Amino acid sequence: MFKAVINDTKSWKSSIDAIASLIDEGTLQIEKEGLKLRAMDPSQIALVDFELPAKGFESYKVDNPTSIGVDFAELSKITKRARAEDKIELSLEESRLKINFRSGTTRSFSIGILESSSTPPREPKIEFTAEVKLGSNTIKEALKDAELVSNHVALKAGEGFSIKADGDTGSVDINFEKDQILGINVKKEVKEARSVFSLEYLNNILSAADATSIVIIKLKTDSPLRAEYAIGEGRVVYYLAPRIENV
Amino acid sequence: MFKAVINDTKSWKSSIDAIASLIDEGTLQIEKEGLKLRAMDPSQIALVDFELPAKGFESYKVDNPTSIGVDFAELSKITKRARAEDKIELSLEESRLKINFRSGTTRSFSIGILESSSTPPREPKIEFTAEVKLGSNTIKEALKDAELVSNHVALKAGEGFSIKADGDTGSVDINFEKDQILGINVKKEVKEARSVFSLEYLNNILSAADATSIVIIKLKTDSPLRAEYAIGEGRVVYYLAPRIENV
Amino acid sequence: MFKAVINDTKSWKSSIDAIASLIDEGTLQIEKEGLKLRAMDPSQIALVDFELPAKGFESYKVDNPTSIGVDFAELSKITKRARAEDKIELSLEESRLKINFRSGTTRSFSIGILESSSTPPREPKIEFTAEVKLGSNTIKEALKDAELVSNHVALKAGEGFSIKADGDTGSVDINFEKDQILGINVKKEVKEARSVFSLEYLNNILSAADATSIVIIKLKTDSPLRAEYAIGEGRVVYYLAPRIENV
Repeated sequence: MFKAVINDTKSWKSSIDAIASLIDEGTLQIEKEGLKLRAMDPSQIALVDFELPAKGFESYKVDNPTSIGVDFAELSKITKRARAEDKIELSLEESRLKINFRSGTTRSFSIGILESSSTPPREPKIEFTAEVKLGSNTIKEALKDAELVSNHVALKAGEGFSIKADGDTGSVDINFEKDQILGINVKKEVKEARSVFSLEYLNNILSAADATSIVIIKLKTDSPLRAEYAIGEGRVVYYLAPRIENV
Repeated sequence: MFKAVINDTKSWKSSIDAIASLIDEGTLQIEKEGLKLRAMDPSQIALVDFELPAKGFESYKVDNPTSIGVDFAELSKITKRARAEDKIELSLEESRLKINFRSGTTRSFSIGILESSSTPPREPKIEFTAEVKLGSNTIKEALKDAELVSNHVALKAGEGFSIKADGDTGSVDINFEKDQILGINVKKEVKEARSVFSLEYLNNILSAADATSIVIIKLKTDSPLRAEYAIGEGRVVYYLAPRIENV
Repeated sequence: MFKAVINDTKSWKSSIDAIASLIDEGTLQIEKEGLKLRAMDPSQIALVDFELPAKGFESYKVDNPTSIGVDFAELSKITKRARAEDKIELSLEESRLKINFRSGTTRSFSIGILESSSTPPREPKIEFTAEVKLGSNTIKEALKDAELVSNHVALKAGEGFSIKADGDTGSVDINFEKDQILGINVKKEVKEARSVFSLEYLNNILSAADATSIVIIKLKTDSPLRAEYAIGEGRVVYYLAPRIENV
């Protein structure tokens, strides 16, 4: 038996979007402590690790922890139909995930549960050499600038933090002002950390971060990036593999 | 001689949209009492029956009642160009329908009159067993929910009123709250009336209803639906054949 | 050495749009008095003649006047990313055009300089017989009306000014009210000036004119049109060849 009620509709929408931005299908772990999901995107370039603790729900009840395969593309479409005033009820019923929106009229949705795939991937262990904190909009805007000339960007943390892109038609170089860097920490033994990433993936990873979110980015030269931000009471972590090509 | 002046530009736009949502070409009857149109959509699944009485115009003058074939797709495009402050003048001139927009500068449009097709279809005679009144937005929102999973929906009037859709990926079930049902009447000899309809057609039928319109829906199990709403001083009635498939 | 700083970001965006609406690549003349560009569109139907004097910049410094080939389609994409609060710095560096946006964080863009094409075309010499002044929105709205039925329009200046279009499905005739004609002057020796032009080109020509711009149109029967309007401290002139077909 599983039953959960959500009243922070906005954060729930963002949470589902944060997952659906990267994967279509995934295994949602329904545990006593809350909901969890860890999955690779279909092309194995990025990993999403999502957690929403029980305290993030208005009410949350699980008798037997379980894992269910969910089509997040479908769940996202349904979730988008929730209105700000709706309470969202989640439950399992006859091998279906039931989603009720209640605010006067009850609107009942249900989607089939997919066969649960294999065990979730492990979280990569990387000794990052740099960490930067930035407002999500600050990064998003810089990525839009970079998109003008290329489909990949170099992220570099050293004395400051910069995003750089080079393409056939032009080049873009953004050196963030100190005011905009909310925190930066580069290990003494390295001068800088720099890697190149796909712009499309970076955009997907940040798409569910709202305007006021703070994003923590961890870097190590030519290694995957780790990006983390909070969504309501929950939090989402992404790992993204670097591109081999130089920018 | 025919000359009519419209000052309720918004309602006129909605009226033309109400027709154009279902048919491209149709025969407009210009009668002493007002304008009328009754036509089947090209695939013969739905019928639109429109009436705008003479009192719905600022001035309305017809010497000899006539019928003209009109390309409503074209007329709709022209009508969309009217501004709120425009008075719209309709007249017939040398086998063309002339549409003038006047508010300072006069903008004159004209479209050719098509060969008038055969006599208009008869209004179907159905002994409906249920009638429901709802705000147009209430229905439109429910249809958007249903669209997530299917291209057809079941409408059921019994103890209450519900809209239900089932698809490969999920199912949707909306039971309208009593507050949202502005009126419901089901004949005693039947327990309920239930039929399945195309979502695309239902959306087209409601597209010209503005947010505050009240829609009267009549149902009979496995029979066509009748939907009616007012547009300014006019009114539009639609009949829509049910789908045979079960939902 | 060339360095220019722009603080009227909005006008600069419009200026680049005014050029990019017609041509992809062109030769920008960097002169002591300011920036100039004169170029034919690729299909040789229209000519754009643009000037932004040195006083239109916050600061403007040129040591050796030069001409550079610019991909205006790319420059326009970059310019669109400027925010209202940004100062825009232009400079030449290692055969690249550098564009910096400064407002706190500096965002640096650069595009390659194209091989400068041949000498700019001459300005056509036409003895126009009519001149009309209109608000840009007045003309734009009329062109939208005309678009409903055709892809070309007749412009006629005589006792008044009118725009007319005829197509297979209908016709449009707009006689501008005297209030809307800000000035009209037709030479005595002709009764009227009338030519037919491509709607697509007319739309492109006016696209960079903001809502409050006044457009000066010069006409001569079956001759190119001349259209001129101001953008901030600069001004743009277009010549557009007439269509041979009658409307």
